[in-house]
Order: sequence, then C-alpha cells, then structure tokens
Amino acid sequence: MNYKMIRYIIGMILMAESAFMVLPMLVSVFYKEYDVLMPFVYSIFAAFATSLVFGLKKPKNDLVFARESYIAVAGGWIVVSIFGAMPFYLSGAIPSVIDAVFETVSGFTTTGATVLAAVEDLPKGILFWRAFTHWIGGMGIIMFLLMLTQFSEGHSLYIMRAEVPGPTVGKIAPKSTSNAIILYAIYAGLTVIETVLLLFGGIGVFDAVTTAMSTAGTGGFSVRDAGIAAYESAYIEWVVAIFMLVFGVNFNLYYLMLLRRFKIAFKSEEFRVFIAIVAICTVLMGANSAAYYGDFGVAIRKAFFQTTATISTTGFGGVEFMNWPAFSHSIILLLLFMGACAGSTAGGLKLSRIIMTFKMLRKESHRLAHPHEVTTIKFEGKIVDKETRSFIMVYMSAFLAILAVSSIAVMMMGHDYETAFTAVLSCLNNVGPALGEVGHGGVYNMFSGIEKLFLSLLMLTGRLEIFPMLILFMPSTWRRH
Amino acid sequence: MNYKMIRYIIGMILMAESAFMVLPMLVSVFYKEYDVLMPFVYSIFAAFATSLVFGLKKPKNDLVFARESYIAVAGGWIVVSIFGAMPFYLSGAIPSVIDAVFETVSGFTTTGATVLAAVEDLPKGILFWRAFTHWIGGMGIIMFLLMLTQFSEGHSLYIMRAEVPGPTVGKIAPKSTSNAIILYAIYAGLTVIETVLLLFGGIGVFDAVTTAMSTAGTGGFSVRDAGIAAYESAYIEWVVAIFMLVFGVNFNLYYLMLLRRFKIAFKSEEFRVFIAIVAICTVLMGANSAAYYGDFGVAIRKAFFQTTATISTTGFGGVEFMNWPAFSHSIILLLLFMGACAGSTAGGLKLSRIIMTFKMLRKESHRLAHPHEVTTIKFEGKIVDKETRSFIMVYMSAFLAILAVSSIAVMMMGHDYETAFTAVLSCLNNVGPALGEVGHGGVYNMFSGIEKLFLSLLMLTGRLEIFPMLILFMPSTWRRH
Repeated sequence: MNYKMIRYIIGMILMAESAFMVLPMLVSVFYKEYDVLMPFVYSIFAAFATSLVFGLKKPKNDLVFARESYIAVAGGWIVVSIFGAMPFYLSGAIPSVIDAVFETVSGFTTTGATVLAAVEDLPKGILFWRAFTHWIGGMGIIMFLLMLTQFSEGHSLYIMRAEVPGPTVGKIAPKSTSNAIILYAIYAGLTVIETVLLLFGGIGVFDAVTTAMSTAGTGGFSVRDAGIAAYESAYIEWVVAIFMLVFGVNFNLYYLMLLRRFKIAFKSEEFRVFIAIVAICTVLMGANSAAYYGDFGVAIRKAFFQTTATISTTGFGGVEFMNWPAFSHSIILLLLFMGACAGSTAGGLKLSRIIMTFKMLRKESHRLAHPHEVTTIKFEGKIVDKETRSFIMVYMSAFLAILAVSSIAVMMMGHDYETAFTAVLSCLNNVGPALGEVGHGGVYNMFSGIEKLFLSLLMLTGRLEIFPMLILFMPSTWRRH
Repeated sequence: MNYKMIRYIIGMILMAESAFMVLPMLVSVFYKEYDVLMPFVYSIFAAFATSLVFGLKKPKNDLVFARESYIAVAGGWIVVSIFGAMPFYLSGAIPSVIDAVFETVSGFTTTGATVLAAVEDLPKGILFWRAFTHWIGGMGIIMFLLMLTQFSEGHSLYIMRAEVPGPTVGKIAPKSTSNAIILYAIYAGLTVIETVLLLFGGIGVFDAVTTAMSTAGTGGFSVRDAGIAAYESAYIEWVVAIFMLVFGVNFNLYYLMLLRRFKIAFKSEEFRVFIAIVAICTVLMGANSAAYYGDFGVAIRKAFFQTTATISTTGFGGVEFMNWPAFSHSIILLLLFMGACAGSTAGGLKLSRIIMTFKMLRKESHRLAHPHEVTTIKFEGKIVDKETRSFIMVYMSAFLAILAVSSIAVMMMGHDYETAFTAVLSCLNNVGPALGEVGHGGVYNMFSGIEKLFLSLLMLTGRLEIFPMLILFMPSTWRRH
C-alpha cells in the first residue's frame, strides 16, 4: 500500500480546508464578531500545520490504485470533519466535541441533521461556516476526483466505480481536469442565480447566500430556527423548492444544455422519472393535506416544497408535515428511500439505481419463466452490462442490509421503531429530517454521544456510496500482502 | 404455454387435497362432531368434483417448461387454499370467507398467523384440519416437486432454481421419486417421535398429534388459546423447542446421518451458524429477561423457546415476550429476518442466503480495493458460481424491496410502524407472530379484509420463494409469444 500517497492526499485536502475556513473568518470580521475570530484562526492554523506534517512534498512513487483512492477518500472525509468541527467547539457554539463533529459530518455529507435546536443567536461567522460545509461537501466527490486526477493521471477512475452508470459525472468529468472545472462552474453559477433570486425576496444578503449554499449542496442547514418558514414568503418557498429540484438533477444535463444538446438532455430516462415522481407526490400530498391548510393552493406549495426537500435529500425545515395525515407520512417515507438523480449533489440511493433494480427484478422473473430467451436491460438507451448489473444488486443489498442492521442497533439503544428506522434511513441517505422524534427540522439532540458517532458514520457511509467506508474498516485492507 | 398441463397439475393437487380432507372428517366422526361432518363432506366433494373438471386425463403433450412449473406451483397453492378454506367457513368456525382463506393460506404456507383469538371451543375436526394444513404445507415444495417429476421427468428441475445452492433438497431429491419418499419418511418419522415424546408429557393424543404436526411444518397453530404455555409443563416446552430446532435443520443432514455419514453432516457451515445463532440469542435473551422471571433457569428455557420458535419460523405462542425488555425485542426482530436452514420446512430468507450475502459484500469490498486479484466465494466448501451469486443478490434485493414497499402500504392503510413492519416481515417469512399489535399469539383479527388478502399474498410470496408469485402476476407471462 502506498501510505505516503494516502498521507499526502489527505494532507492536500486538509490544506484546502484551511483555505476554505478563511472565508467564514472574514465573515466574522465583517460582522465584527471578534470573539469568534480567534477560534477560526486557531482552526485554520491547526489544519494548515497538520497538513504540513502530513507532507507537502509529493512522494516519488505517486502511483495510486483503487485501494489507496478509497482509503484516501474515506480517511480524508473523516479528517476534514474533525478539523472542520474546531470552530464550532472552540467558539463555544457547540460545547460538546462529539456534537461539533456530528454537526460537521452532517455539513460535509450534506445531510443537514443538526444538534442545534436554536441557531439564530449564533455568530454569523459560525452560521456561514455551517452552510459553507454543505456547499463544499456537495461537490466533494468531484473535488476529491479533481485532486486525485491531478496527482496521478489515469489511476483515479476507480473512484467512480461506486457511482451508477448512465449519464453520470464519471462519463465526462474524470477525463480531464477541465471537465471538472466546467461542472464546478455550473455549480457555482446556479448558486449565484439562486442567491440573486432570493435577494429579490428581500431576505438580505447573509440569509440569501447561506440559504443558496445549503440548497446547492442539498444539505438543509438554515440560519433561521424555523427554517424557510421563517421568511413567511410564498415567493421564497417557491424559489428554494425549485432550486432543490434543480440541484437534484444530473449536472451532466446542464452541461449538455450548455452545449445546446437539449434533445438528448430532455430524453434522459432518469430525469423523466424524477420529474414524474415529484409531480405525483406533490399532487398526492397536496390533496391529502388540503384539509389541514384549508386552501388547495397553499397545500400544493407546501407539498411541492416537502417533496423536493425530501427527494433531493436537502431536508430544509419549514413545512409542518408532522401535522399532515398518516398517508402523507408514508409518501415521505418512500421519498426518504430514493434520493435524486445520479451525478447531482444529492445523496441517497439515486433514482438510476432504483430504476435499474426494478428492471432487473422484472427481467429476472422473466428469465426464470423463459430460461432460453436472451433478455437484456436497457437504461438511458444503452444496454447495461453484466458487471454493472451485478454491482448494482450488491449495492442495493449492502444498502438495505446496513439499513436493517443499523436501525435495529439504534432501537437497541432505546429508541422507538419510527425514530430509529427513519433517522437511520435519513442519515444514510443524507436527508436530515426524518419522522418520529426527529420530525420537524431534523434536530438530533435527543441522541446520546455514542449514537451520534454511529449516525455520523452512517452519514459518511451514505455520502461516500458505502464501499469506501467498508474498505476502510475491513481488516483485509490493512493486512500485508 | 401448455395450459392443459397446468390445469391438469392443479387438478391433481386438488384431488390430493380432497383425499387429505378425509382425515379430519374421520376425526370429526371419531369425536362424534356430526355437525361438522357435512361441511367436510361438501368440501371433499367440491374439491374432488373440481379436480375432475380440471382434467383427470393426462394431456398428450406433457412437456412442462419453467414457466408452466412456476405457474402451476403458484396457481396450485392458491387453489388449494381456497378449497381448504371451505370446512372453516361451512362449519361456521370462521364466519367470514376472507378470514377462512387467510387462515388456510396461513396454514398451508406454515405461517401460523391466525384470525382466531380463541380456539378451544372449536370442533376437534376443524382444529385437526387447521394443524394438518401445516403438516401438508411444510413439505409442500417437495410434494409439488414429486408430482411434477412424476408427470414430466427431467423438465421440472427449474422449480429448484428458486432454492439456495449448497446441501439443499434439490441436490438429492428431484433426481428420482424414491429420494423424495425418503425425505417424506424422515419428515413423518420425526413427527411420530415428537408425538410420542409429547404423549409422555401427558397432554393426550389429540393435543400431542396436532402440536407435533404444527411443529413439523414449522407452522405454529395451536389447539390451545394460550399456546404451548397452556400445558404448564417445562418438559413440553423443552420438547417443542427442541423439535422446532430439529425441523429448522436441512433435511439432507438427516439423510446423511441415515447413511451414517455423520462427519459430513456436522461439518455443514449453515448448520453450525444456525446452532451458534440459537445459542447466542438464547443466552442474550435469557440474561435480558432473567429479572422478569426472577429465575435464570426459567428465563433460559423461555428464551430458548422464543429463539427456536422465531428462527424456525414456527412462531408457537406461549412465551410472554412482549413483557420482556426492548433489547430482547430487537433480538426477536433480527431473528424474524432470518429463517432457518435451506432444505428445512422453515420459511424465511434462510441462513445460507444470509451467509452468502455477507460473504459477497466482503468480497465485493475487497474486489473494489484490489481490482486485479481473483477472488472466489466458498460456501459449504464449494465455490459459488457467478450465476448463483447473482441470483442470490437479486433474491435479497427483491425480498427487501417487497418488505419495504409492503410495510409502507400497510402503514398507509392506517397501522403504526412497528405493527406494519413486523407483521409484513412475519408474513413474508412465514413466522406468524410479530411485534406491536400482533405480538402475542400472532392474532391478526385487527386487520381489515383487504389487508388480510394482502398479507395472504405476502405469505404465499414468501413460502414460494418470491419468483413463482412474481411470474404469476407479471403481464408478460400471459402475453402470447
């Protein structure tokens, strides 16, 4: 194993993080919050110094194979979560180390589960850092990829193995750094457009920027205790809801649109399923909650917001869905399972995997009944090869097995079924809010320290598409060969 | 599609059922229950007459392919459930048609979920039929196989595709009718031994025979309202618990023992995992419930009973596990997932599938980290081939997807999470009792008619290893080619 390269890559990631933390520090200075200035300075210094210790000089042997890539990804994400937690802890905003780490993991994994029931009294620099972790994390997979491709051309494609085939980021991005930069530009551009639209709603620069960053990363941290409902504006709700939808779409479709290949973009099977599911769930939940609101228009708006918030794994608070009838809760539970499109910033199982799983089940039943017929599965117009099919099945089984075992574990730690199951599902799919005790707002402060660490591991497992974390914790990875 | 053969096979199955129903009729006569005599006569006549309509003469073209086999299995099971429900309905023991069908499906699938909260006042002939459905259903897969092999030598092996590889029934049974008869003899022999041991406990012939039949089929219907607890005998509890374990073991191991190949039998990987899980869960639940009983010996006995009852998918009532601490409930939930060994009469996922799934997840993680290494999976000392591995993954995904979608459906019909999830899991795995509203005794009478039909379909889906039911309901099966 090339330990030196792993250390070096993690060091570079850490250095990038120390640079990122300068921005919230400047925000603190701007708002004259001098008491959080030093916590940021210490954190930046600690991250920077550690990154130097990890190694600034590129090792002579820069060959990185699959194993090293996975370990660097998983290890890097854990390390940045620990250093990223420092400002929260040192500033006193989150007085417990475990809570601060949970909040940071939730930020970087774009989950949006929080330990903070009230946030409005916190310094703006801290709130900015909190939203900024979403924005950084949202494109994190691509960031890692970008770094890895820079360091060892051609050897880093393995990272994309954990991604679903079809029109994914993998198809255009890893070929060269410039493609990754285009995707970043799209990401940044959409964030700016949302910020501007939010500014038209009159919520001020700070709220607009942080809300847009949280939306872009499909995270869900808000700078208001009441979430998006705090702005009491239908316009703001519509903007945020639409952008949650926008960031749940495969970024390659925007790339295709930039290239003016609209036909190909709109023909995407996954995109069409995505839009259909959002439309159906909006109508169903709107009809179901209309009596509660006494106004069908309001009900549809709220239902649309809740649908996009859940399926995009953003999970912004602001809709009192816990007061809706049980039927809507079942719809939300179904949405919690899904996740949006592959190649978006959303977490979750991803629709392409779910679509292909259903196609495979249908095919397998057909094959059992007609063993001599040759059948193939097509997705996005292309035949899905055997290895990909097998990998998707392994992925689904791994996901569902982790879900089952983890929710039983959380039940054993003394939580009711609804809370345990939906909290585990929500963390694993990087959504944030769940049902039961963690319904509104996704506040997780009723969990114990050990439970929060466990849920943090689940968030990382979900965000990194399961296998990097499994490889990191597998004894055979660390055995000498 | 060879419709004539499907009709013919179902006709033969129905004729067998009409013969089976003579036995409970004789029991009624023996106990001088003349008011249930006629319901049995009508039922026997109806089944017999219909079987004649379905066709007594074997079609000229007796070629049966995979598709026909699956449809005959799934269709046959549904038809016998409907005719088998007649005695319950006609005798007035179960005044609703849907309830009577639910009870019969539960009987033939060896689930043991019941609509009857009290059974002790029912006629003995009815109670006998109820237990007898378990006994018939327990070896049902083999009965179907036996019939199919008789009708079309060599074409019926497809049925075993749904079974897990390793030392399954499939490996020795379908080669010839005589092997199937040996397995029946083992089944009948073990049932007789249990009956005799129960007679030593002084519970009378009727209770001994019906309890032994329910145990043998891993069903769980009891002739006492309080289940096995009604006998207030530690001896009876031990005998039933041990035989639930015995009927959860792969029957091929008994076959190997008869051939005096003990070493091979005890080397079985699945058998060892089975014993280890039972031992660990017994100790854990015993320790956890010791305070409740105030006696460690009693707690261990009750924990052993509950463990074997759940993992063998028998689900006999008699242990007040709903009063145990939450930790034990989580263990029961884990056991509800498993099912015992492949090639036993137990339902459920089966341990061999679970073991192989874990091995595959470990292997897949390893393979991602070391893409150039060739790795294989071994089970029971043999390498698992690619097609089998892929099929197990498809099976696991199908199982978990059905579980997820069905529990959400039951929640939507207005039940709490715990009840919906565990009832669906329990029906799909043919266990019977669950947690929540269906805790003690597995009484399902709080579900509506439509819900009972839905749960009946789940019981059939689980018992027939998913794919025959999927094929039956798949439009492409019925499309002309």
